[in-house]
Amino acid sequence: MTTTQEMLRTYPADLGGIDQEALARCIEACFECAQACTACADACLGESGVAELVKCIRTNLDCADVCTTTGRVLSRHTGYDANLTRALLEACATACKSCGDECGQHASMHEHCRICAEACRRCEQACRELLASLG
Amino acid sequence: MTTTQEMLRTYPADLGGIDQEALARCIEACFECAQACTACADACLGESGVAELVKCIRTNLDCADVCTTTGRVLSRHTGYDANLTRALLEACATACKSCGDECGQHASMHEHCRICAEACRRCEQACRELLASLG
Amino acid sequence: MTTTQEMLRTYPADLGGIDQEALARCIEACFECAQACTACADACLGESGVAELVKCIRTNLDCADVCTTTGRVLSRHTGYDANLTRALLEACATACKSCGDECGQHASMHEHCRICAEACRRCEQACRELLASLG
Amino acid sequence: MTTTQEMLRTYPADLGGIDQEALARCIEACFECAQACTACADACLGESGVAELVKCIRTNLDCADVCTTTGRVLSRHTGYDANLTRALLEACATACKSCGDECGQHASMHEHCRICAEACRRCEQACRELLASLG
Repeated sequence: MTTTQEMLRTYPADLGGIDQEALARCIEACFECAQACTACADACLGESGVAELVKCIRTNLDCADVCTTTGRVLSRHTGYDANLTRALLEACATACKSCGDECGQHASMHEHCRICAEACRRCEQACRELLASLG
Repeated sequence: MTTTQEMLRTYPADLGGIDQEALARCIEACFECAQACTACADACLGESGVAELVKCIRTNLDCADVCTTTGRVLSRHTGYDANLTRALLEACATACKSCGDECGQHASMHEHCRICAEACRRCEQACRELLASLG
Repeated sequence: MTTTQEMLRTYPADLGGIDQEALARCIEACFECAQACTACADACLGESGVAELVKCIRTNLDCADVCTTTGRVLSRHTGYDANLTRALLEACATACKSCGDECGQHASMHEHCRICAEACRRCEQACRELLASLG
Repeated sequence: MTTTQEMLRTYPADLGGIDQEALARCIEACFECAQACTACADACLGESGVAELVKCIRTNLDCADVCTTTGRVLSRHTGYDANLTRALLEACATACKSCGDECGQHASMHEHCRICAEACRRCEQACRELLASLG
């Protein structure tokens, strides 16, 4: 069991009808993606061809911020607000889609972009699956 | 001129057709609201009747996180992504509405909730005005 | 290999003499601890005896913020600033020690505090080991 | 009165012997600097000579993160932890000094770097003054 799953298991009240596996997967994907995007923005800055990676860096920075906030909001269950959860999951899936597409365009040139694009796609899918499970 | 306005004025490229006054107001409202919500969550923790403020604290924490991320994303103009901007502004207006309503319910009892509710409403309005100006 | 390790492996320039295993462990511990502390603050809010957990919640919120920032700064290698890295690792070890101690006091009562305390201790140790390896 | 000052004034318990003016100034400087550094990193990305601004961008990103976390921690007074406050103020002054120096080197070429350097210096000074007032 991961720490995220343990924290869900030990929450002191009922989590409602939420799909706990989908929730844990989404929280973990958000934190993983936030780290990958932060590192990819920096790796792009370290490339000699940084001028061609300007849009990629910006998209990475946005995606890191949105994933961090989404991962935090999803880690809270007390006084749950379905409207905000949905709106943030939509925004997070949008950020991950943009960043996955942008990094994907540089994947054959830069391995860090390939790995980051994979993290973005996992996170986008985890957000969409959690959204779907919310009904 | 505020620092936020100065930073917009000195951005080295065209900002597109965006309403710069609405943008500066929204960025500043996001940072102000993030600070107010962080402080209000803490002030609620300092109240003897903290048990009745549990939902207020949670809403404050979410709102602080969403406003921080929105203020950051709005501060970036390179490689602008209209879809993400819109989705985040929607999420931020949602968070501010929830938090303004929740804090508003405690405004007559707790002055910090009254002041925080005002910051939330300013930020919600700034998000909606910027959304409207995006067309 | 974790995504964090893959991102380190594919960084396009030399990482200097840094101990990559200690670095990866510390980055991962920071993100794990940030999630655990965010969730523990919320779990404390969900307890009927929230009034006795006020200090624990505050310490969790601080620790989550410091770990998030430390994890991000450690994920950047371009234009490395040894002074800032050291100062932040000191601050992060301090935050994790405080939070681990505070959560540790509630560990027998609240399982979420026990799990969170363990994440804090892992992160504190990872920060201290990375600090030591920096010489 | 600013919202930050109002939130301090309405905190429900004693703030200890802390210099409230120095505290409010430091919180506001942290949020202002976080915004300026986020915008300056982006403005640097928008420059045709981005390759020469790589270190500046990285320093801006670190400084934005550290200032955000410091501004949040300083906004909390419940269960105050002097050790963490001191360690973070040291880290924040270090980040602001690095970023102010780096942006200062580009100030004659790029107005956004000049304005950001001023925000960094104000924040560094506010951190050092608050540190001194803590005794």
